[in-house]
Amino acid sequence: MDKSPFEYDSVEISEDKRAVRIIDQTLLPCQERFLTLNTPEEFFEAIVSLRVRGAPAIGVFAAFALAVSAQYIGSERVEVFIKECLRVKNYLITSRPTAVNLMYTLNRMEGWLNHLKERGCNVAEMKELMICEAEMIKEEDVQCCLAIAENGFKLLYKGVRVLTHCNAGHLAVSRYGTALGPVYLAQNRGFAPKVYAGETRPLLQGARLTVFELLKAGVNVELMCDNMASSLMQRGLVDIVFLGADRIAANGDVANKIGTSMIATAAKYWNIPLYVLAPSSTIDQNCACGRDIIIEQRDPYEVTGLYLKNGIVPESVNVYNPAFDVTPRELITGIITENGIM
Amino acid sequence: MDKSPFEYDSVEISEDKRAVRIIDQTLLPCQERFLTLNTPEEFFEAIVSLRVRGAPAIGVFAAFALAVSAQYIGSERVEVFIKECLRVKNYLITSRPTAVNLMYTLNRMEGWLNHLKERGCNVAEMKELMICEAEMIKEEDVQCCLAIAENGFKLLYKGVRVLTHCNAGHLAVSRYGTALGPVYLAQNRGFAPKVYAGETRPLLQGARLTVFELLKAGVNVELMCDNMASSLMQRGLVDIVFLGADRIAANGDVANKIGTSMIATAAKYWNIPLYVLAPSSTIDQNCACGRDIIIEQRDPYEVTGLYLKNGIVPESVNVYNPAFDVTPRELITGIITENGIM
Repeated sequence: MDKSPFEYDSVEISEDKRAVRIIDQTLLPCQERFLTLNTPEEFFEAIVSLRVRGAPAIGVFAAFALAVSAQYIGSERVEVFIKECLRVKNYLITSRPTAVNLMYTLNRMEGWLNHLKERGCNVAEMKELMICEAEMIKEEDVQCCLAIAENGFKLLYKGVRVLTHCNAGHLAVSRYGTALGPVYLAQNRGFAPKVYAGETRPLLQGARLTVFELLKAGVNVELMCDNMASSLMQRGLVDIVFLGADRIAANGDVANKIGTSMIATAAKYWNIPLYVLAPSSTIDQNCACGRDIIIEQRDPYEVTGLYLKNGIVPESVNVYNPAFDVTPRELITGIITENGIM
Repeated sequence: MDKSPFEYDSVEISEDKRAVRIIDQTLLPCQERFLTLNTPEEFFEAIVSLRVRGAPAIGVFAAFALAVSAQYIGSERVEVFIKECLRVKNYLITSRPTAVNLMYTLNRMEGWLNHLKERGCNVAEMKELMICEAEMIKEEDVQCCLAIAENGFKLLYKGVRVLTHCNAGHLAVSRYGTALGPVYLAQNRGFAPKVYAGETRPLLQGARLTVFELLKAGVNVELMCDNMASSLMQRGLVDIVFLGADRIAANGDVANKIGTSMIATAAKYWNIPLYVLAPSSTIDQNCACGRDIIIEQRDPYEVTGLYLKNGIVPESVNVYNPAFDVTPRELITGIITENGIM
């Protein structure tokens, strides 16, 4: 297996299994500060304050958070222990109610606990096996991302130039990320890929996080404003587009960070292949097509905040600020999951 | 004729014809400060420092600057007077060497001076007639913009929703501007148009100038990040796209502010009509197609500068920052000049 270009994962359990270590993403990239957390209140705060972000990373974090919290429960009585675990679980689940991965992994941990009870485990065994299950969840996530990365890597070659948007990398997901996974493999394997990273207005995840993690891994990255993608494509400087996904409808329409569909119309026109890289769990069979996906409208200040201090626009100006957009399937060359390229 | 929604033009000559009055665009929109200038050094500084910007506005300003400078020349001898005028002209022309309108109007003023000499005018007559010629240049610019506005207005109707990019309005051009001209007519005539203004990264001319002047004229404007245009179009919220042009090749390819071609690919895909509005003088017959237009690469700090103070990206990061892009003619529904819709 390839060596990770990073000396840490965005979410890790401590060696003694009694704490969770994360990099505080709110301080990136100016400060690389790690937090060691071990109380439900600290875990809750880390999720709410976005110190840990990226749906898969939040899911892994929540599983570790519950397993670690369980280590500190004093009672030896199974009923009391489980009741206390579920209290923590129900507390953590409210930290970001819309995060699907958070719900998924916490429910999986609850199911595991019930299974252990049925098997007649005592509290000490349960504590140990909860840690094992959380580690399994992370390992599965790592393996899924690696499989996505390997599938995407098949499309790359020496000197390939990849355009991406937002952050679907190492920080958001376990180890290699989704959209950036093939890039890291290509970098490890001497392909010297080049990445064009859109700054990703309004919240600048591209400029802040993608540029940070690619530079750290030694990848040749060039930052651009989002509106420059078409110009790059026209000049023949982009070979392939790799994007993540927040949700994929059953028909293949993809909801992802605002700006994705704009890149897709440009890529279609300039005839650049465009792939969406995501775990198969992102495909929502209950959602027939993109029109069924409700797009959250966010605070106007996210758009105006960067320059309001300079008096650039009146605070009262109307602002259009959707968090995501939907890219029609016909603009997408393929969807890459851990199972292959669709 | 429609009443201008603005109480001033971006460039005006004083009543006594001995000074030029401009609004200092570097301070907009936080401060609306007017400058009264009357020396060649002040005129030069105003152009270099972008206190006056927008190609047509610079052209008009330069003509006034030369005519006003001439008023202060002491000699009554025609030869000395003309020599001194040409010294000022050659000084002003170096202030922004690539500005076509600057060169055009200053050369036209020189031609006019030679014509007056041939006609046997004395210095006093020359001084007066130079002011007349500069006023004529401005008036022609105003009439040209009004004709563009009327031609574009034919495409509008009550409640029309217009998407625009950068600033091709009142501040950049005389009176009504180009791309925004039809919007101002529609506003005057009770059509209540709505404008979506892209912020226009990296230098934010949309957020700073377009939002400012539309709000001032009472137009319903909504600010968005550039990457949101496709999302708006997809949701059926945009009826028409109006853009300016820096240069139009003989085949119809259009060079304009970076991001224009990205909007055009989205508009093509979502089937939204897209028009470029510009004086016919913008069409460069010496330039066969878009590939012949050299695109200036600008300072990376323009991209990173907004957020460097917050430590968001390392100063050393590579940055792609072209000033313009080229939109292929097939993405353009029509080009609107003072002569009609092509």
